[in-house]
Amino acid sequence: MAEVSIDRFVDRYARRAAGMTASEVRALFAVASRPEVVSLAGGMPAIDTLPRDQLASVLDDVLAASAETALQYGGGQGLPALREALTALMAAEGVEADPEDVVVTAGAQQALDLLGRIFIDPGDLIAVEAPAYVGALSAFSAYEPRYLTIDLDDDGMVVEQLERALVRGQRPTFVYTVPNFGNPSGVTMSYARRRHLVGLCREAGIPIIEDNPYGLLRFDGEPLPTLRSMDPDNVIYLGTVSKTFAPGVRVGWALAAPSVVQRLVLAKEAADLCGSNLGMVLTERWFADEARWRRVLADLVERYRRRRDAMLDAIAARFPPTARWTRPAGGFYVWVTLPEWLDTKAMLAAAVERLVAYVPGTAFYPDGRGSNQLRLAFCHPTEERIREGIERLGALLEDEARLYESLRRR
Amino acid sequence: MAEVSIDRFVDRYARRAAGMTASEVRALFAVASRPEVVSLAGGMPAIDTLPRDQLASVLDDVLAASAETALQYGGGQGLPALREALTALMAAEGVEADPEDVVVTAGAQQALDLLGRIFIDPGDLIAVEAPAYVGALSAFSAYEPRYLTIDLDDDGMVVEQLERALVRGQRPTFVYTVPNFGNPSGVTMSYARRRHLVGLCREAGIPIIEDNPYGLLRFDGEPLPTLRSMDPDNVIYLGTVSKTFAPGVRVGWALAAPSVVQRLVLAKEAADLCGSNLGMVLTERWFADEARWRRVLADLVERYRRRRDAMLDAIAARFPPTARWTRPAGGFYVWVTLPEWLDTKAMLAAAVERLVAYVPGTAFYPDGRGSNQLRLAFCHPTEERIREGIERLGALLEDEARLYESLRRR
Repeated sequence: MAEVSIDRFVDRYARRAAGMTASEVRALFAVASRPEVVSLAGGMPAIDTLPRDQLASVLDDVLAASAETALQYGGGQGLPALREALTALMAAEGVEADPEDVVVTAGAQQALDLLGRIFIDPGDLIAVEAPAYVGALSAFSAYEPRYLTIDLDDDGMVVEQLERALVRGQRPTFVYTVPNFGNPSGVTMSYARRRHLVGLCREAGIPIIEDNPYGLLRFDGEPLPTLRSMDPDNVIYLGTVSKTFAPGVRVGWALAAPSVVQRLVLAKEAADLCGSNLGMVLTERWFADEARWRRVLADLVERYRRRRDAMLDAIAARFPPTARWTRPAGGFYVWVTLPEWLDTKAMLAAAVERLVAYVPGTAFYPDGRGSNQLRLAFCHPTEERIREGIERLGALLEDEARLYESLRRR
Repeated sequence: MAEVSIDRFVDRYARRAAGMTASEVRALFAVASRPEVVSLAGGMPAIDTLPRDQLASVLDDVLAASAETALQYGGGQGLPALREALTALMAAEGVEADPEDVVVTAGAQQALDLLGRIFIDPGDLIAVEAPAYVGALSAFSAYEPRYLTIDLDDDGMVVEQLERALVRGQRPTFVYTVPNFGNPSGVTMSYARRRHLVGLCREAGIPIIEDNPYGLLRFDGEPLPTLRSMDPDNVIYLGTVSKTFAPGVRVGWALAAPSVVQRLVLAKEAADLCGSNLGMVLTERWFADEARWRRVLADLVERYRRRRDAMLDAIAARFPPTARWTRPAGGFYVWVTLPEWLDTKAMLAAAVERLVAYVPGTAFYPDGRGSNQLRLAFCHPTEERIREGIERLGALLEDEARLYESLRRR
């Protein structure tokens, strides 16, 4: 009808969609996807380690033996054979699980959304780490909670802060944590903190959501027990194959009490009917060979360890003495804290101009903090590219410091 | 810790999750999945028409040429090459589209969820057909709207009812419709009604959501123009490949104005980060060969037409004279209305005992109507099985009528 399209929808959006607009950071990331830019921003796994011939033969099997299932609709809870395979994967981290207590989701991200949907009424208080996984904040924020932020230090969540908040009468609906090699922090919750958190939440009657995407990607030291294994009744556990296999199949899961599982399945059916059977059958067949996935995992750990080392060495050599950063024992990320006067969001355009990208810190706080912080991912670029990227970023930080000093002296 | 698992979560659910419990109907469907039961309940496409050798070779190509993409994370809007392919598919129904205005979703179901999320505040009024697609009601209900129900007759939505409601001052946030071979009704909106609806909604400034999963599955007569083609500015159009290709890839989409697309992408990223690149690349490669998908589609239309004929013939021969039913010109479903005294939900247990299943009518109304109605799907069972199923259901209806008469005479 009309030649020029006009926005007839502008006054009709829901309250929760009011703030949904593309940010400048988003636009910069589009620029940063050019190959000459060293992206230390995205958390894309190194899927080139997957043996392609084996993948091809597993896919052939899927189509030969299970096409009728792989191409069809499935149930909301996910294929039973896959849920069985996922319990074996959880056993590798000391988590005992019944396949009946597992809901397969489109990555662990969808589990966060569905948990928000079944637990959060507008105005409810929920407890998150500061900084927290930005995708969890996006998922939860759709349901309009208030946030209780609990700081992180080198031993993970400062559980004492949560305890003081409870004493003062604040009652979060749940506590959300990434205890192993957190995103963006890279830090791991110590055993003492785990015991404290689990005991405190049990006493207070507050469920814990334990998100563990990186647990199997440990480079140094011994694994710590999952929160779920310390108190199965009170911990909802989230996992994913995005880091041990491939994000492209979109397979994550929640392990929870039957009453929670039942609601998650109904919420899942309302959200997208069912997961991709194709992705689920492929994942199930892939993990059916334990020697294979353990070999791929060992390759990944070795590769990521070298990339982490390259990044930490380069940072130590090149960043100004005012910078502080975490030393992750696994996972994907290093978290950098710079002097208070530095605005990492404002600096991103200059960084992209110098062909290096990172994620500014403010995205990881629901309360506006983090303007002098940034996240660096070492998972995807080669060691050589990581060194290049850190060199460029180090030079930029040096120039910024020089500029700041000259302005301050005036 | 505890030996017996207790439900620590029971007092913590959000208001929207309060009603989320597994129904008796659900339990009956689990029983009805036994092979001896003729299921006329589920809307599972006849995917056995897909040529497996061609699928296998397309999958091989995907892995050989696009593994790096297929296995990795993607953007929230979906792969550009797939969005391009989907515009070609829409062109087959007379819908002009720019790939930039398309958001790929996990089936059209996820588009319904995301539209609910960006448009519905609790208490908002939305207009739906009565009966309406149960999955749309589930998706929208998570955002707690009120419903304005508009009756269907043999010409589709009775638009006059919507007009009267507008005159009385009711202002729905949007109107949701399945104009072609509706689920569950099987009816198609006439051209006159389409013109009336599009003109009315434009005048009133109320967006239309046009959900068109079955449009290409027409058995008789000429296609009617989509609502979208009649007013692109005011109609959000939803499509899916679940009916023309395979539900297992979970590929659907929304075509909308840029401001809506932008919010849908952000909502999608919060919900599950991104769709399955594996499913998207496979779908894109499948639809790259137009002769192939048109051949598969022609096979499907022929098969479904025969199944519809088998069902309508069997119903005409076997159902009691008090029954009324729709005569769909395409799609998957026949909608049956029985005498007022009959309760199709209560009757389902007896039907399953006699080895036939259907979906009771109440699921398709947000207001408790439909207790004497039921939905029959002819898409999945063979003609032979359809005749058997209708025979069993006809015999049950006869017995129910006899019982009712004998009780009434007492």
